[in-house]
Amino acid sequence: MLPVTFLSDYGLQDEYVGVCHGVIRRIAPEATIIDITHGVPPRDVRAGALALKRALPYMPPAVHLAVVDPGVGTERRPLALRCADGTTLVGPDNGLLWPAAQACGGIAAAADLTDSPHKLEQVSATFHGRDLFAPAAAQLARDLPVELAGAPADRDNIVRLELPRPAVSPGTIVAHVISIDRFGNLSLDAGPSDLDQSGLAGEARVHIQAANAGDDVVHGRSFGDVPTGESILYQDASGSLAVAINGGDASRQLGIELDDELTLRRCE
Amino acid sequence: MLPVTFLSDYGLQDEYVGVCHGVIRRIAPEATIIDITHGVPPRDVRAGALALKRALPYMPPAVHLAVVDPGVGTERRPLALRCADGTTLVGPDNGLLWPAAQACGGIAAAADLTDSPHKLEQVSATFHGRDLFAPAAAQLARDLPVELAGAPADRDNIVRLELPRPAVSPGTIVAHVISIDRFGNLSLDAGPSDLDQSGLAGEARVHIQAANAGDDVVHGRSFGDVPTGESILYQDASGSLAVAINGGDASRQLGIELDDELTLRRCE
Amino acid sequence: MLPVTFLSDYGLQDEYVGVCHGVIRRIAPEATIIDITHGVPPRDVRAGALALKRALPYMPPAVHLAVVDPGVGTERRPLALRCADGTTLVGPDNGLLWPAAQACGGIAAAADLTDSPHKLEQVSATFHGRDLFAPAAAQLARDLPVELAGAPADRDNIVRLELPRPAVSPGTIVAHVISIDRFGNLSLDAGPSDLDQSGLAGEARVHIQAANAGDDVVHGRSFGDVPTGESILYQDASGSLAVAINGGDASRQLGIELDDELTLRRCE
Repeated sequence: MLPVTFLSDYGLQDEYVGVCHGVIRRIAPEATIIDITHGVPPRDVRAGALALKRALPYMPPAVHLAVVDPGVGTERRPLALRCADGTTLVGPDNGLLWPAAQACGGIAAAADLTDSPHKLEQVSATFHGRDLFAPAAAQLARDLPVELAGAPADRDNIVRLELPRPAVSPGTIVAHVISIDRFGNLSLDAGPSDLDQSGLAGEARVHIQAANAGDDVVHGRSFGDVPTGESILYQDASGSLAVAINGGDASRQLGIELDDELTLRRCE
Repeated sequence: MLPVTFLSDYGLQDEYVGVCHGVIRRIAPEATIIDITHGVPPRDVRAGALALKRALPYMPPAVHLAVVDPGVGTERRPLALRCADGTTLVGPDNGLLWPAAQACGGIAAAADLTDSPHKLEQVSATFHGRDLFAPAAAQLARDLPVELAGAPADRDNIVRLELPRPAVSPGTIVAHVISIDRFGNLSLDAGPSDLDQSGLAGEARVHIQAANAGDDVVHGRSFGDVPTGESILYQDASGSLAVAINGGDASRQLGIELDDELTLRRCE
Repeated sequence: MLPVTFLSDYGLQDEYVGVCHGVIRRIAPEATIIDITHGVPPRDVRAGALALKRALPYMPPAVHLAVVDPGVGTERRPLALRCADGTTLVGPDNGLLWPAAQACGGIAAAADLTDSPHKLEQVSATFHGRDLFAPAAAQLARDLPVELAGAPADRDNIVRLELPRPAVSPGTIVAHVISIDRFGNLSLDAGPSDLDQSGLAGEARVHIQAANAGDDVVHGRSFGDVPTGESILYQDASGSLAVAINGGDASRQLGIELDDELTLRRCE
């Protein structure tokens, strides 16, 4: 029996997450369920994909159920995937699973769950998390092989999702904000290798230019490397370059939102 | 040992839910706890009753603990109920448990937990979830019969809660918004039988009239049946008629709130 | 195997809590995890300390993991503590653990986790919950003695956090709002002994004076002791004096915020 991890954009204000837990427990009463998060912004497939990819290295061997599914009830396929490293992923074929699958060595086998033998008797048009995905995840946790979870699906024909990448040139990185957390910390699509490539890695301070404002910012390790209220550029715990304000909320205080462009360059 | 499901309006910002988990685990360390939701709007007994009723068919056999309890510490009774189908419900006698109990075949036995032998040593006046209900639920999960959970209570004298019903006439349904989820989808008190009865079931489009605006809306199966940004009338996963905007938030964008009246009729 | 309780200011919108669960489960797959709350306001060490102290008496014997850690990555020490009553606490040395440790009989042994043999291979500068604290908590749940969790730390040299106290004089208590819950109920730093000492304990009504407004308020037991919409002074479930509005939100409706001063005195 494997644990089931569960990530979605269902939020916790409604009974949706609890209902999926119930469905899993009816099939696999002893399974451990790890809620990765249900706070993915509604229908934000990329945010869900990123959270899943970031969380996976810290999870035990498990069946990973992920549902951010704006196309539920349309022709987008419901999938179960086995990755090259043995990881099992369950969710809609809309790119949500793609970055995680790539990080797990690529897709070794895929099943289309549309006519899954394990789906609930009544399948609604709008809650496949409950009716299709949770039952499949629970059966897979009970050691059902991916091949038996549904009809064979072409593993080369899975919807891809490419995460944004920064433009790197000598002395300059044009990056984008790819996630903002509860603390208002801004995670960028750039990482330490981009810093190396641009030649900015050794700079003690870096100029960060947003649409309406720019500032020279300390390049440090953690929040406390700058006084309270000051900005810092650092490598965050997911390995991304990030911008935070010590003791503050960089998103709110700097007026920076998801997908905003930030240019990092040498201070003058 | 049965699982315990848990639904409340406690929210997750405070330690209340965690404390109830602790109390349950002190009595029944091995019990599985399924959090249905703790996001019921504060003191909204009807919303809690509806979420419980909707979730129950998807839960394993369990003791269902539900606490939305604006009258805590007053004369309203704390109850444990056994339903005709064997389901056990624990919570305040304010109607919260009524729709779920009816869906489980009605009440077969009832116990008043006021002087429960299992309550905590100190019973506060404002947190019966912790002091009365959680300990009772944990004991019931350990196979305590409802009859031994407290004093006998007259099962014909439980507070009832009738959910709203639409007014249906030929060509017209006057319905009400009974829940709004995280996505802004509007769930109505009308269902497919009302659609049949009104003669609107076969209509490809239906006119939906709110207080300040009306529109002809596609009658479809799922969000993707209409272009992004358009409204759709559909049967949601709880079996209710519902209104959504594909890719949007119908509540916010249409300015429709809980309990608002929506009239469905034939398009002209 | 002990359960692990977990309290933080990580919120649930990101994958942080789920990732810590994953780390714990990789080390201690069978451990029960009880989430006390993750809704502590960002970086509010005192609020976290208070929630932990209030929750602990209701928890089973466990390893208590608590992370509210604005100084992560600086010189503040990561700690594991064993209290005189056997309770184990894990978290940053910033006062967060102090009130709970005092309530558990004081600190019997302390370990500095900076160079914990159990930390993850890569320790980030900003997510010690994942990299240091969760692995230590999981090992301690597997019966690792605190003494082996890290380097010996001087138990008399732990950062203290004193909770605010009211000023009590005959007929008057000058108190402060120390927590506000989801319902807007205002918990004060004063308790029943302060009421006794001030001579106000027997008063059926008490005058409560905030900065901008004052009112004579019923001194009762629970919300329902006053009509809907009226304020009540009562002893809340944590043992503190508290102010609520029956059916309402005292914080919002009275405009009272965290740390505000409230003066309680005899009605004229």
